[in-house]
Amino acid sequence: MEPTRPDRAPGGHARRRDALRDLLREAGLDALLVTDLVNVRYLTGFTGSNAALLVDAGDDADRGEDRTVLATDARYTTQAAAQTPDLPVLVERACAPALLAGRDGRVGDGRVGFDSAHVTVDGHADLLTALPGGELTRAPGLVETLRAVKDEGEIDALRQACAVADIALAGLVSSGGLREGRTEREVARELEERMREAGAEAPSFDTIVAAGAHAAIPHHSPTDAPLADGDLLTMDFGALVDGYHSDMTRTLVVGTPADWQRDLHALVAEAAAAGRAALAPGTATRDVDAAARDVITAAGLGEHFVHGLGHGVGLVIHEAPAVSATATATLVAGMTVTVEPGVYLAGRGGVRIEDTLVVTDGGAVPLTQSPRDLVPESRDET
Amino acid sequence: MEPTRPDRAPGGHARRRDALRDLLREAGLDALLVTDLVNVRYLTGFTGSNAALLVDAGDDADRGEDRTVLATDARYTTQAAAQTPDLPVLVERACAPALLAGRDGRVGDGRVGFDSAHVTVDGHADLLTALPGGELTRAPGLVETLRAVKDEGEIDALRQACAVADIALAGLVSSGGLREGRTEREVARELEERMREAGAEAPSFDTIVAAGAHAAIPHHSPTDAPLADGDLLTMDFGALVDGYHSDMTRTLVVGTPADWQRDLHALVAEAAAAGRAALAPGTATRDVDAAARDVITAAGLGEHFVHGLGHGVGLVIHEAPAVSATATATLVAGMTVTVEPGVYLAGRGGVRIEDTLVVTDGGAVPLTQSPRDLVPESRDET
Repeated sequence: MEPTRPDRAPGGHARRRDALRDLLREAGLDALLVTDLVNVRYLTGFTGSNAALLVDAGDDADRGEDRTVLATDARYTTQAAAQTPDLPVLVERACAPALLAGRDGRVGDGRVGFDSAHVTVDGHADLLTALPGGELTRAPGLVETLRAVKDEGEIDALRQACAVADIALAGLVSSGGLREGRTEREVARELEERMREAGAEAPSFDTIVAAGAHAAIPHHSPTDAPLADGDLLTMDFGALVDGYHSDMTRTLVVGTPADWQRDLHALVAEAAAAGRAALAPGTATRDVDAAARDVITAAGLGEHFVHGLGHGVGLVIHEAPAVSATATATLVAGMTVTVEPGVYLAGRGGVRIEDTLVVTDGGAVPLTQSPRDLVPESRDET
Repeated sequence: MEPTRPDRAPGGHARRRDALRDLLREAGLDALLVTDLVNVRYLTGFTGSNAALLVDAGDDADRGEDRTVLATDARYTTQAAAQTPDLPVLVERACAPALLAGRDGRVGDGRVGFDSAHVTVDGHADLLTALPGGELTRAPGLVETLRAVKDEGEIDALRQACAVADIALAGLVSSGGLREGRTEREVARELEERMREAGAEAPSFDTIVAAGAHAAIPHHSPTDAPLADGDLLTMDFGALVDGYHSDMTRTLVVGTPADWQRDLHALVAEAAAAGRAALAPGTATRDVDAAARDVITAAGLGEHFVHGLGHGVGLVIHEAPAVSATATATLVAGMTVTVEPGVYLAGRGGVRIEDTLVVTDGGAVPLTQSPRDLVPESRDET
């Protein structure tokens, strides 16, 4: 047995390429053209804005690795040398066609897959032009299948991204940042500032802060509307750490909650708990959705829960597996997903409670750990 | 003549749809399926994260408008009602197929275009499934053609986005923020904070701060490397205001410049000036690229100018028209483009100078207005 080549160590990327080769061979493919930049980053560590990767399945892993090539343009040659010292780099502006053209006719003999969920109709035409006489096979979602199950380093990054969001919210609440008169925009800004201070590269998506009737809009953009006494206040936000995203939603009340607000919050909290409890390896994600949705439907509010229960989260804020009534995925240990039931009452407000969790053999472990109370504890105690 | 319908006023979006109808009729299309979210926003004002638009060409503009439909999912019904009161809204998760399926067989009779530069191979297959017996025609870039020429409201937003970046840089420089020992990351963070304080919704892209040898990497991500005396320091950044992006690069020196740094900066400044001077309606953008590139090539450094001269900028940071040696566009008054020549010397550093400008009949007007000096004036005077 040959020793492990020292240049294959960096970041576990070579191990991921090897895992992809197993999928390629199962799919009867000789190579896969990887064009989505997130997938390129996952498989190589390269973070430039223009790249493609041709992963050769090889007869065995080493031979496949020897014939695997990264392409990027001249702006990124220095960066590629630093980030992917273990891969040959083809320098071309039109990365993906260049990788095929560089196959010297070998593609015509083998079956090359392309990611039909990412390559556009025009892009596909360009690939065929680069490959006269060759053939391309639709192969969507292969890298996404790998990405859905996180390795330890990825879970660490996600845990850190979630902790940053927790720290930001705790600071906002304990400093009295959710008082009457502040605007949605100010609250969103402060959450984002606090996440940066706690180590976020950036917010992981546009922060949602929705007060009063706005809380009935699931994806509301913060405005200059001031928080008013008695408003439901929904905050949906996350942090980006090492390229990994966190995602959390809390709904609090400004001031003292009315009975209907307490009831609504308790209902959604119960649905969220049911969803979290249903997370286990081997469970169909649509059954997880059902576990939470049934709680809301039984209360007669099913029509106001207008979205899926959750989604995978990692290098992309929404990724595999989907967790919804129409999803077809089955949970595997190492998947990280959100559970986020919500009920939205037009004109009155809404409640959503969302956590990011990692699925383990012992059940789901929440990575976001902020209290889920309608009234923050610090205020409740006074 | 019918009076203008009062519900067609908001944001000039209906006027843009009318302009698109002219393009559709020229292209022999009866309708266009718009799937890119930026294009949907441009044509309707809708900013949700899942939407599609079917623009009917109609026999005349009013009839086409009456048959134009926006689709989004249930999370966004309230938002759609607020942002696009002038359009009927179809509520479906799979927006684009639903719009075709809703045509009740009319599509089979007419020619419906789709944006083959955005629709993926799998997405196209879904559209064909939704449209049994129907036919779809490739129609890439039609909305982008409209978007390339900005209206007054757009230029105002771009001017504001550029002013925000100017204010941030001026504050950074005058407060002594570019001193030895600070890290690239700290400088990037401060630029971004200052842009937010000055009114940016967000940075318009990942801020580039590259010191010393890093300045030889055109798209360098800021690190914890400290600024050192004698470093070239390249900052490429911009602000997002009302959805519009600014883009500016300045290269300064930390401390006192060496002769080679002065020479390199003067060369790039001359190339940038030549590029700006070449911007005029009717000029091919590749000739603008050549005007700047020739200056650098004549100095024997052509191989170190490794990217195109510039790009259009608007709702997207890189949009039509491209300004490069291989571009095929011709300038029109109202286009907003960047001019950003750069020379990169591996291991030593690099210089890039970039402005965002609007093309007018009287020449190009810079929207970014920061001084372009290698040594900031405030320091030069001391």
